[in-house]
Amino acid sequence: MVNSKRLSSREIRSEENPLTQNLSEALATASKAVNHTLAEMFDDALEPTKLYAASKHLITAGGKRLRPYLVLEACKLVDGRPEDALRVAAAVELIHTFTLIHDDIMDSDDLRRGVPTVHTLWGTPIAISAGDLLFAKANEAILSSLKASKLSPRRILKIISLITQATISICEGQALDILYEERAIISKKEYFNTIAKKTAVLLETSAKVGAIAGWGKAAQVRRVGRFAYYSGLAFQVIDDCLGLTADEKILGKPVGSDIREGKRTLIMIHALTHATTDQRKQIYAVLGRASSTPDEIDEVVQLVRSSGSLDYAFTQAEKLVVRAKRQLSPFPPSPSKENLLNLADYIISRKY
Amino acid sequence: MVNSKRLSSREIRSEENPLTQNLSEALATASKAVNHTLAEMFDDALEPTKLYAASKHLITAGGKRLRPYLVLEACKLVDGRPEDALRVAAAVELIHTFTLIHDDIMDSDDLRRGVPTVHTLWGTPIAISAGDLLFAKANEAILSSLKASKLSPRRILKIISLITQATISICEGQALDILYEERAIISKKEYFNTIAKKTAVLLETSAKVGAIAGWGKAAQVRRVGRFAYYSGLAFQVIDDCLGLTADEKILGKPVGSDIREGKRTLIMIHALTHATTDQRKQIYAVLGRASSTPDEIDEVVQLVRSSGSLDYAFTQAEKLVVRAKRQLSPFPPSPSKENLLNLADYIISRKY
Repeated sequence: MVNSKRLSSREIRSEENPLTQNLSEALATASKAVNHTLAEMFDDALEPTKLYAASKHLITAGGKRLRPYLVLEACKLVDGRPEDALRVAAAVELIHTFTLIHDDIMDSDDLRRGVPTVHTLWGTPIAISAGDLLFAKANEAILSSLKASKLSPRRILKIISLITQATISICEGQALDILYEERAIISKKEYFNTIAKKTAVLLETSAKVGAIAGWGKAAQVRRVGRFAYYSGLAFQVIDDCLGLTADEKILGKPVGSDIREGKRTLIMIHALTHATTDQRKQIYAVLGRASSTPDEIDEVVQLVRSSGSLDYAFTQAEKLVVRAKRQLSPFPPSPSKENLLNLADYIISRKY
Repeated sequence: MVNSKRLSSREIRSEENPLTQNLSEALATASKAVNHTLAEMFDDALEPTKLYAASKHLITAGGKRLRPYLVLEACKLVDGRPEDALRVAAAVELIHTFTLIHDDIMDSDDLRRGVPTVHTLWGTPIAISAGDLLFAKANEAILSSLKASKLSPRRILKIISLITQATISICEGQALDILYEERAIISKKEYFNTIAKKTAVLLETSAKVGAIAGWGKAAQVRRVGRFAYYSGLAFQVIDDCLGLTADEKILGKPVGSDIREGKRTLIMIHALTHATTDQRKQIYAVLGRASSTPDEIDEVVQLVRSSGSLDYAFTQAEKLVVRAKRQLSPFPPSPSKENLLNLADYIISRKY
């Protein structure tokens, strides 16, 4: 989950403006309830203690609990009781964390949420098991709703089914990401398909299962799901932009490292499509080459900026956010609706 | 899953005796139905094709489908309709295969079921994703029972719950196995706890979910589960014995390689507990040392045989099989009962 890694490597700076201030507070409130549920599931007495410590590691290290937030807000949006959705909210965070642990192994990443990754601390075998365990624990969390909430067996099956499909989607997206590394260029369609599978589908599912847990109607479930889906796509596109424009200290990694890593971002796809033959040669000479110098990378960053590729990506993200917010128009005004719209606006406000 | 790897590395030799002949035929019949269900789930059109090829690889490479067999026979034992249990049977095979793929990465094993392991062929990142995908597909298989069988939502939730708990158990067992490698000795209790979690619990669960899918009563579900659990423990103990006694060609790996790998088998635990100080020194000098010569290993094998540790382990396995079979005594005679008892007898007959 490249997106999520970046998401969590950057703090929402509440001093920036009232929008992020409100969002920070709303996220913190949701986190508190979800963290409590997660803590209950990871009793310190569980053995082997090393496996459970490895499984809990990234959960206790932080993360904004964006997905649980979507679950709970979507539940409230359809007038549901958030306490019915709490274990489902915990489940999506467990699924997300499981994919992060495995993703860090796949990418040989050393740091996540400002702490060493699970495989760095406990070794790859325990890290693989820790991820698998969290996947199973996600099932367990949803199943526990049968006793702990008023959800019917059929509704719980529907929630398990959606989360299962989202997980399949993440696996497919991960695999696409790996397989595309061998390709010189991928199309815009392939790019959006990959970020949808890796990121947007789990966000969509979070919102949908929240609305289902809140006994929302089918049309409501679909709409809030689409809201989260388009927001997720926008988030990923903006994330790629920030990789070329943001303050290095806020970004938590060198500006342009996407270029060094050879990431096929929307910006890069646009740049490669619109570049002259010479420019394309210049980009390929630097893209994905670990030994590229900061100057070489900076030249490509300038080239990409001047070619309009960065503006193009921003515009695409803005369009996606408009599309996302439009999905919520049939819902009457409510604090949850405002929270969700704030979340979408935050995605764009991050650009500065 | 060390046990399963060995299980599948050795063929049931139907020419040996009528017992294995009958068992082979019964397994083949069950396999056919389950393979058909699995094939339906892995449509060739699914993308990315490499991920799905990696996921299917071990499934199509063979395996005796012992766990699906337990599901289906337990279903029939309680007068259920095996077609109601078919997707559940496929699910336990998917869970089993997912753990094999991840286990092979953890153990850096190159071969399984006579073919190269998934990570050997597609690389570790795709292999991790392929395992994760199969876990999700197991959920999907069970959920598909809602439409494809007469199982109620509540019963399906119970089945998902048991399989989830079995998967948690496997993760814990895997971790114990890894963590115990650092220890000089583990106790018999720790040994049985590990093989229970790694092996016996999924066999127990296979039988239980089969009986649940067959609308068995709680006592029937418990009994057939216990049958499979004790059989599973016996299977693992015998497997360790065969590692020291079997024909190398049938075993598929050098006799005594458990000693070279430093495996803490029941035999080794017994031998270390009962050896003289000098003998213990001799064992530790060879145990888990990759550079041990065949002669050194052979000396330890002889020492372990003469100390009675091998006989001890065989006797323990025999007791476990008696205990397993006793669980089925309340069931009236039926072809399924006979099949299950045959399966238990086969575990012991393997000793020659």
